[in-house]
Amino acid sequence: MRPKPTTSANDTILLSHGGGGLLTRRLVKDLIVRQLGNSILNELDDGAPLKIKEKDAVFTTDSYVVRPIVFPGGDIGRLAVCGTINDLVMMGAAPRFLSLGLILEEGLPMADLERALASMRAALRGCGAKVVTGDTKVVERGMGFGMFINTAGVGFRVRGADTRVANASPGDAVIVTGPIGDHGAAVMSCRAGISLRSELKSDVAPLWGMLAPVLRCGPRIHCLRDPTRGGLAAALNDIAEASGTGIRIVESAIPVRKEVRGVCSLLGLDPLNLACEGRAVVICPRRASGAILQRIRSHPIGRQAKVIGRVCKGHPGMVILETAFGGERIIEIPTGEDLPRIC
Amino acid sequence: MRPKPTTSANDTILLSHGGGGLLTRRLVKDLIVRQLGNSILNELDDGAPLKIKEKDAVFTTDSYVVRPIVFPGGDIGRLAVCGTINDLVMMGAAPRFLSLGLILEEGLPMADLERALASMRAALRGCGAKVVTGDTKVVERGMGFGMFINTAGVGFRVRGADTRVANASPGDAVIVTGPIGDHGAAVMSCRAGISLRSELKSDVAPLWGMLAPVLRCGPRIHCLRDPTRGGLAAALNDIAEASGTGIRIVESAIPVRKEVRGVCSLLGLDPLNLACEGRAVVICPRRASGAILQRIRSHPIGRQAKVIGRVCKGHPGMVILETAFGGERIIEIPTGEDLPRIC
Repeated sequence: MRPKPTTSANDTILLSHGGGGLLTRRLVKDLIVRQLGNSILNELDDGAPLKIKEKDAVFTTDSYVVRPIVFPGGDIGRLAVCGTINDLVMMGAAPRFLSLGLILEEGLPMADLERALASMRAALRGCGAKVVTGDTKVVERGMGFGMFINTAGVGFRVRGADTRVANASPGDAVIVTGPIGDHGAAVMSCRAGISLRSELKSDVAPLWGMLAPVLRCGPRIHCLRDPTRGGLAAALNDIAEASGTGIRIVESAIPVRKEVRGVCSLLGLDPLNLACEGRAVVICPRRASGAILQRIRSHPIGRQAKVIGRVCKGHPGMVILETAFGGERIIEIPTGEDLPRIC
Repeated sequence: MRPKPTTSANDTILLSHGGGGLLTRRLVKDLIVRQLGNSILNELDDGAPLKIKEKDAVFTTDSYVVRPIVFPGGDIGRLAVCGTINDLVMMGAAPRFLSLGLILEEGLPMADLERALASMRAALRGCGAKVVTGDTKVVERGMGFGMFINTAGVGFRVRGADTRVANASPGDAVIVTGPIGDHGAAVMSCRAGISLRSELKSDVAPLWGMLAPVLRCGPRIHCLRDPTRGGLAAALNDIAEASGTGIRIVESAIPVRKEVRGVCSLLGLDPLNLACEGRAVVICPRRASGAILQRIRSHPIGRQAKVIGRVCKGHPGMVILETAFGGERIIEIPTGEDLPRIC
C-alpha cells in the first residue's frame, strides 16, 4: 500500500527542519518514516543495530547532486537508492542496509521531498534492502539545488563471488547488459531544454534482480563494473588498468539507442563517456558467456545484453575500439569535463 | 609521519574533479588516499570489503554542512569524523569503519580540502577507526558553502552494552562529561564576527577514548546520548520521552564556561540549546555514578564531568530545571530555529 501524501501544496522546507528540534522530529516521523519505515529505522536512534552472522560484508557510499532533481525516467531519490545498491552488487554483494543523508535547501517544496522518498521506496522494492538510519540537514535558500542525497550501504558477499576489476583475464568475453548512455543523455537533454519527440529516458534501475541469479548460480563471473560517471570508457579503462590486460571492443556491437546518438551529436558528446545508472559490464570466461547472457536476458532490464568485445594479452592497460569502418581507436578515460552533475 | 602538502597555493577544485575521469582519479589518489589511505581504502573499488565475525554491528550516518568550514577549535573534517565516531559510541559500539562522501564547490582552494582531510586523519588517530570507502562530487561555483561532508560509520557493540535512551530508570544519576555549548557558541560567535579576547573553542572531539573504559569495564551505563543539535535540552527530552521517565536537573550544577554565557547573552541564545560535539550525557544507576565519574574524569576531555541531576518517576516525559533561585522551569525541546548549520 502506498502511503498517502501528508503534505499540502504550500508546505516547504524551513531552516528549522534542520535544527534538531521539534520540526526535525516531525519531518522525520511524518515524512521519512512514513515512506521508508521499518522496525530498525523506526527506533530513530543515533544509529542502527545490525545483526550480522560471520560474513563477508561490503560497505559503500555515494552522494548524489544531479541537476535537475527530476529527469525523464527517474529522480534523485531513485538514483540514490539504485546507485548504492548497484555499487554493492558490483562487489558481488546482496544489498541489505542503507543509510540516508539528506541535505535540503530551505524553500524546497515538501512535495518534492515526498516524491523523492516515494521513489526510494519503490526502488527498494524487491531488492532485499532497507533504509535503517539517516540524517537530515537544511541549508539556506538560494543555493539553487533543491536537495543532495548521500546513501551509504552495507551488503553481504554472495558465497564465492569475487568480481574485482583486477580479475579480468585474456580470453574473457566483455558483456554489456543493455544500451549505454541513456541516463547521461536523458539528464543532459533535459538540462539543455532539448525536447525529443522520442521517449528518451534514464536507465536508472537496481541491478540486484538481474544479477542475483548470475552471482548465485554461476557460472562464475570474473568482474562486474557499472559504467556510471565516465561511462563505458571509464569502466573499461578501470578494468584494463587494474587487471593489466588489454580490452578490444567492437563499435558495431555496442548497443546505443538512436535517441542517445541524436543527443550526442547535438551536444557534441560521445556515448562511450555517458553515464548509465542501470547497466553493468560483465567480464566472464568466453565459454560461460552464452549461459550468462541467457540468464541476464531473461530479466526485463537485461533483454538487450550483448557481448561487445574481449579481453586480450596485447596492449595491457589499453582499451581499443574496432570501428565500423575497420579502423581502430584508443578509448581513453574521459577527463571529466563533459558532464558535471549527472549523478 | 604527517604527509607533506601536495597542492600549491593556486590549486582549486574544478568541476571536472567530480566527473569520474582522470582528474577525479588524481584527486583521490594524490590527496585523499595520501591523507587517509589504508589497505582497504587503497583498493579504490566501488565499495570496501569488511571481514566481520558474528557480531552486533551498528550503522550510522551524518552529513555536515557547518558554516564556516573552519571555526575556533576545529573544522568540518574533524567535525565529520568525530560526529560519526560519537554516534557509534553513543550506541555502545567501538568505531571501526567510516565512509567519506565529499560534495565540493567548484573553486574551493585545494589547500582547504587538504586541511579538512588532515583534520580527519588527526581525529581518527587512536580511535581504532579508518576511512575505507568514499565518493567525491563537485557542484558549480557560487553555491557559497565550500564543502559538505557525509560520513557513515560501522562499529561493533561492546559485549553487554545497551545504551538506548529508553533504558533510563527512576533513581538514575544524570552525568554530563564536560562544559556544555562550546561548539555552538564557537561557531555562532565566529559567524557573527564576535571576537572574544578569551579562548572560546569548539569542544569537537572523539569520545571513544574517554568512554571505552566505561563501556568495557563497567559498572553498566543505562543510556548514552551526545547533546549535538538541540543541545542538552534536546538530549534530555529524548531520554525522558523514550524512557517514560521524568528528568530533573540542577541549574547550578551544569558546567557552562563563562565565555559561552557571554556569547549567549550577546546573541540571545540559551546554553541548554547549544550543540556540543565532544560531550556525552551518561545515565547510570546512582550507586555506580561515583565509579563512572572517576573513570570519565581520568581522561583529559572528561576532567570537568559532573552529576547534574537525576531521573525520577514524576512528570514522565518532562525535563525540569531547578533554577539557581529555587524555582523550577520546564526545559522544552528546542524548535530548531536558533541555530542553523552549526554541524
